[in-house]
Amino acid sequence: MKNFDINEDPHRRFNPLLNEWVLVSPHRAKRPWQGQNETIATEALPKYDPTCYLCPGNVRANGMNNPKYESSFVFENDFAAMKQDEIIFEEDIKHTFFKAKPEQGISRVVCFSPRHDLTLPEMEIDGIENIIKTWQKEYTDLGSIKYINHVQIFENKGSVMGCSNPHPHGQIWAQSSLPTQVEKTQNSLKAYFDKNNRTLLEDYLQAELKSGERIVIENDHFVALVPFWAIWPYETMILSKRAFGKITDFTAEEATAFAKILKQLTTKYDNLFNTSFPYSSGIHQAPTDGLEHPEWHFHMHFYPPLLRSATVKKFMVGYEMLGESQRDITPEKSAEILRQQSEVHYKSI
Amino acid sequence: MKNFDINEDPHRRFNPLLNEWVLVSPHRAKRPWQGQNETIATEALPKYDPTCYLCPGNVRANGMNNPKYESSFVFENDFAAMKQDEIIFEEDIKHTFFKAKPEQGISRVVCFSPRHDLTLPEMEIDGIENIIKTWQKEYTDLGSIKYINHVQIFENKGSVMGCSNPHPHGQIWAQSSLPTQVEKTQNSLKAYFDKNNRTLLEDYLQAELKSGERIVIENDHFVALVPFWAIWPYETMILSKRAFGKITDFTAEEATAFAKILKQLTTKYDNLFNTSFPYSSGIHQAPTDGLEHPEWHFHMHFYPPLLRSATVKKFMVGYEMLGESQRDITPEKSAEILRQQSEVHYKSI
Ligand SMILES: O=P(O)(O)O[C@H]1O[C@H](CO)[C@@H](O)[C@H](O)[C@H]1O
Ligand SMILES: O=P(O)(O)O[C@H]1O[C@H](CO)[C@@H](O)[C@H](O)[C@H]1O
Repeated sequence: MKNFDINEDPHRRFNPLLNEWVLVSPHRAKRPWQGQNETIATEALPKYDPTCYLCPGNVRANGMNNPKYESSFVFENDFAAMKQDEIIFEEDIKHTFFKAKPEQGISRVVCFSPRHDLTLPEMEIDGIENIIKTWQKEYTDLGSIKYINHVQIFENKGSVMGCSNPHPHGQIWAQSSLPTQVEKTQNSLKAYFDKNNRTLLEDYLQAELKSGERIVIENDHFVALVPFWAIWPYETMILSKRAFGKITDFTAEEATAFAKILKQLTTKYDNLFNTSFPYSSGIHQAPTDGLEHPEWHFHMHFYPPLLRSATVKKFMVGYEMLGESQRDITPEKSAEILRQQSEVHYKSI
Repeated sequence: MKNFDINEDPHRRFNPLLNEWVLVSPHRAKRPWQGQNETIATEALPKYDPTCYLCPGNVRANGMNNPKYESSFVFENDFAAMKQDEIIFEEDIKHTFFKAKPEQGISRVVCFSPRHDLTLPEMEIDGIENIIKTWQKEYTDLGSIKYINHVQIFENKGSVMGCSNPHPHGQIWAQSSLPTQVEKTQNSLKAYFDKNNRTLLEDYLQAELKSGERIVIENDHFVALVPFWAIWPYETMILSKRAFGKITDFTAEEATAFAKILKQLTTKYDNLFNTSFPYSSGIHQAPTDGLEHPEWHFHMHFYPPLLRSATVKKFMVGYEMLGESQRDITPEKSAEILRQQSEVHYKSI
């Protein structure tokens, strides 16, 4: 019998956003790795690739030509997961087990810049501010379409995250329904707000700032931290200090501060294993259903798969799929390691 | 405006076990793939590998020697995610956001047979029956330990599923708490049973057998099907026809029938892309908390990642992590393709 030591002993942590538990095995980082190694692209990319379907002026899969764009560039996804067609549908209530509903939506691709070789951490602040403006415009435009109630902005970075083109880009999937994970988050945010009249994340952020242990970067308007309940080894979340629901609520100062923290965080990521750090990231914000959402608090998630090096990732497999998410190093340790990374990109040294 | 066609139009389906929605994009299977290709092990494995830490008689990472075992063989995981130590813990209720609890558990490895090269589909029925006996024994032994309330039996197959040793083996993680996914499942099963006095899965199975569309294999005691709400391209579930809660409830006939359907299903998987088909699989069954669980219905999930070929997998990334699971071909189509696969293993022809 010994006293609980959260830094050493296996334990579960509670995620109040998704309302679920996570298994943490601090000691397990020590196990040797004999499994699969990821391949990494080490070749430097050209500034422009004539065969890339995202580069300015080139031809896309559907035969259309990209304009000679000079900052960020948005187009409709040629292989969208949802379609805009309105579908006639009558729910068949006899179906207890075969419940299905048509879903309307729009998918877009956001090229971050004309440069084939410039990832977020390598861009200048004003280039990142341009992306933020594009996200704001898309959130507004898509959100104002009558049947669109949710706009998911995200990026898959790196081939290990299913990204099929190295030209830096993100995606936007806008749709009628609130996606599963967003709905769970909203339920938690709402329950908290109804009870406390403050957003869950504003109070959480206070508690994190007070503790300091999981903070990675802080500026006047945003904080990047490893959530107490993070599942990926170097998972982070960027939170706004001020409680507001959506990207279009940014002041000009907040937009710049957000661009800066994005650059700093992704630079630290790249410096961690001296590699273009793969991740999926995305913004969670108020739905565009026309209702007031005082419970929503703007935040961005980063889910990076790497665990020990540029080639060894964490596998979320058997136990994780059937049981629950499990992590091998503590969020506190990960935050410490990320804090120690330089904010100067390794390639620029 | 057109009428809803579930085989063609994007839609969402409801998973009554996890109580969540899934996005289905039937048309999306057509998009070209330019992304990451998985590497596959094509070399034939030896029957015995002197460097393998799972082969009979060999030395493990912790310095211990494996016995010269002749059927299946179980040992304690040297790098367990949980520990057996009892931990003194007083919940700190001040912590709204930093909720953590120590977790006690035991992890074991189950080598399927002495043969380094024999995967499930390549084993004889009596060898598979041996594995089932081992699972039954472990469920009983671990389950009877006072602090163990749940026994998760699973297999990670293939390096793409984080498996670090090709010697065919599964794992068992037994622990105090009900893991997140199991708890969700139990809540759904219980709500249904309380209302209908039948298990959810026994009624679901009736509906599936009546429809026939998603059935892959049926024998006297078990059915393998692609669930209506499957997220992985070739996800399947094996269900018992009789409603019982746990693997130790098998009759002798059921054990043989289960061995047979396991062999048939995994053979079809291998034949699909002429490869040793990777997956994570696992059994969901009644917890070992000493209570009656009439709501539980024994079933086994198979979550295989491959989408189009032995080297192209489905990535559950950005939208899937932040929004909801999304699939590119319909479960009906997948079931049809699996049904068409031979039950004779491609290697034996
Ligand atoms: O226990 P193993 O085989 O070392 O590890 C594998 O399975 C575990 C349970 O699903 C995962 O947590 C690991 O990420 C995976 O590599
Ligand atoms: O849309 P892409 O880049 O073709 O595809 C990528 O992102 C999608 C959204 O997360 C995933 O569904 C795909 O599995 C992945 O390969």
